[in-house]
Amino acid sequence: MGSALSFEILSRSATTGARVGRVRTVHGEFDTPAFMPVGTKATIKGVYPSMVAQTGAQVVLGNTYHLLLRPGAEVVSELGGLHRFMGWPGPILTDSGGYQAYSMADINSVDDEGVSFKSIVDGSTIRMTPESAIHTQNLLGSDIIMAFDDCPPSVDPGAAPINQVRLRQAAMRDAGARSGYDHDARLDQANERTARWLERCADAHARPEEQSLFGIVQGGTDLDRRARSAEMVCNVDLPGYAIGGVAVGESPEDIARITSFIAPRLPENKPRYLMGVGYERDIVGAVLAGVDMFDCVLPTRNGRNANAFTRSGVIRLKNARFARDPGAIEPGCDCPACDPGACGWETLEGRPLSRGYLRHLFASDEMLGPILVSLHNLRHFQGLMADLRRAIASDDWAAMARRWPSLSDLLPGGRV
Amino acid sequence: MGSALSFEILSRSATTGARVGRVRTVHGEFDTPAFMPVGTKATIKGVYPSMVAQTGAQVVLGNTYHLLLRPGAEVVSELGGLHRFMGWPGPILTDSGGYQAYSMADINSVDDEGVSFKSIVDGSTIRMTPESAIHTQNLLGSDIIMAFDDCPPSVDPGAAPINQVRLRQAAMRDAGARSGYDHDARLDQANERTARWLERCADAHARPEEQSLFGIVQGGTDLDRRARSAEMVCNVDLPGYAIGGVAVGESPEDIARITSFIAPRLPENKPRYLMGVGYERDIVGAVLAGVDMFDCVLPTRNGRNANAFTRSGVIRLKNARFARDPGAIEPGCDCPACDPGACGWETLEGRPLSRGYLRHLFASDEMLGPILVSLHNLRHFQGLMADLRRAIASDDWAAMARRWPSLSDLLPGGRV
Repeated sequence: MGSALSFEILSRSATTGARVGRVRTVHGEFDTPAFMPVGTKATIKGVYPSMVAQTGAQVVLGNTYHLLLRPGAEVVSELGGLHRFMGWPGPILTDSGGYQAYSMADINSVDDEGVSFKSIVDGSTIRMTPESAIHTQNLLGSDIIMAFDDCPPSVDPGAAPINQVRLRQAAMRDAGARSGYDHDARLDQANERTARWLERCADAHARPEEQSLFGIVQGGTDLDRRARSAEMVCNVDLPGYAIGGVAVGESPEDIARITSFIAPRLPENKPRYLMGVGYERDIVGAVLAGVDMFDCVLPTRNGRNANAFTRSGVIRLKNARFARDPGAIEPGCDCPACDPGACGWETLEGRPLSRGYLRHLFASDEMLGPILVSLHNLRHFQGLMADLRRAIASDDWAAMARRWPSLSDLLPGGRV
Repeated sequence: MGSALSFEILSRSATTGARVGRVRTVHGEFDTPAFMPVGTKATIKGVYPSMVAQTGAQVVLGNTYHLLLRPGAEVVSELGGLHRFMGWPGPILTDSGGYQAYSMADINSVDDEGVSFKSIVDGSTIRMTPESAIHTQNLLGSDIIMAFDDCPPSVDPGAAPINQVRLRQAAMRDAGARSGYDHDARLDQANERTARWLERCADAHARPEEQSLFGIVQGGTDLDRRARSAEMVCNVDLPGYAIGGVAVGESPEDIARITSFIAPRLPENKPRYLMGVGYERDIVGAVLAGVDMFDCVLPTRNGRNANAFTRSGVIRLKNARFARDPGAIEPGCDCPACDPGACGWETLEGRPLSRGYLRHLFASDEMLGPILVSLHNLRHFQGLMADLRRAIASDDWAAMARRWPSLSDLLPGGRV
């Protein structure tokens, strides 16, 4: 597959499956375990690109589905590719668009060839196939491109509540096309399709010298099906592999159960990517199981809603009790909100933008509120990853447990 | 009045009234002619404070009216004052709130004591007097505080159309309180009140060692009344003086006529501030008449609406013709949109965020669009001021005329 990507494992935890590594791409390298901020429409919402980098992010994610609909992959290509388009010179990963086609489309039909869905931008019908998903990503020019997979509902939509209403609705429509939905049969079908489609993705991939294709393991919450999917997917020799079909409505326990089962079954010397995860506890559990890459909208989505992550939990900055609070979101944090002095504003050293100010910005519907809390949250997650990398490299988890008391019960020796 | 402010004139244009100077405050200094970005609610909308400074801004403006209503001056004071509250360590000027009380309030009544109006936040009745306006600004702690003045409509609201509907409505209500509105009588009344209120402001000012009170000249579009107001206002010895009651609906010609008449009648050795102005042509005209300070919402308000200032005019980035345009908003501009390489993103040197990308951001309703065009527009105005300062200092206007062809007809020798 060319030399578009290399992965070096720099150190391993003696007591867990965790490892520290470095991924090299033609647009630079990133340290693992890595958290990728999500830039759905070619922008990390509300954050100037170099400030995304300042939070510690080394690689970001773009969503093929959204970029396909607007402005279109041809436009991005014509304007120099996704890196230049969005002003992010470092590594970029794009998903294949499959998940969004399943979960966000108003109408979709799935067959052995691909997926048809209605554009949320202009209502036109879009056809997506393994070949078109790869072609689109070839045009975008991202460093890591994802296989186009068949994404069944992870939980039988007729039997159990799941959180993501759209996904459930899509699954029901999908089920309605046949008489009598058989969840197990659907999972098997998705496993088979995902494997066949992966072969087609690999065949269609036109830029293997610059872009690296990752395969995606499906299988729902059933470990046997997960194992079979992993076997089929890893049968195709690729630079990396992902665990898909999680964070689509299952419990944190299910995420942990699937991840700790599957991660060790993925090739040891390739990066492992858990898609769409997640909260800090989900990430820590997966890192200990040997996962290397993560992405999630939580930092920016919660930031826009005034929910700030701290080491002792989420605080809701719209709350009236913060109106006269002079403190930083999190004392000791070095993000542009908590410590402007650390971010090119020397005269403000040690003078945080206060919780009171942030509350005022949200009460006044001022853009700077979402901007600042997004920055803080991005820094929070990057700080978590940096601390995890340090703990793995030293195999000293005590410092990590002290800095992240709410996660200490997950860490080796963290709760004696 | 203490030593809260000093103004040094560094050089004068030989052929015009323009001068280059430096204002020193307890929070640092700024070069004049100066353009102050407007941070109405204690934030330059959408822009992180240190990036405001990066555009070249050395002093910013806050609106007392908005801060009085939310979060309240006591809260700002409790949280360390406006500088600390909004993370801007440099000089800040606040207006008195008078103009907004007149123009934005749903209901107001004006008498010799002050103004009553309805809060746009919670509908409660607010009373504002010269004393309360100064007390509020003393609490905010801004470096330059503005006198509370009586703001009549500049144009007879019964006789001529004016642009600002709210101002006209307020004037009509004001007029309706008496039988038969007499515009000339109203202007005379405002002149008298403004002078009396200025004395009360000066008496009420409790922090003259840290904050500098500027008086405001009124008088509408009538030059005789302007001259009388200037005489009365300048009779009070203050660190600086402002021209108020412009940019409230008059033509550019009226703004120029009033400014060129009044500016030379203000004390030579004190900073002169033209409130709420304006477009580039208005600013250049006023600078040549000897004005030193400006503020306007145009860069950020237009930026949020995708209207970008360039040296050849405003371009509307939502326009479909920019969809595949790879160029910078303005080639040669060093703002964070036009040249990320100049803004801490070395690997992007010479690689602008394209007009096509900006159009995509606005089409996708992404916050980064307003952020980037606001930054560009702020840089545009700061670039204009820097070029003006250079031209004045060297009395060489040819380079300025080449860089700003659309303004060249205003410049000395610019159009031979």
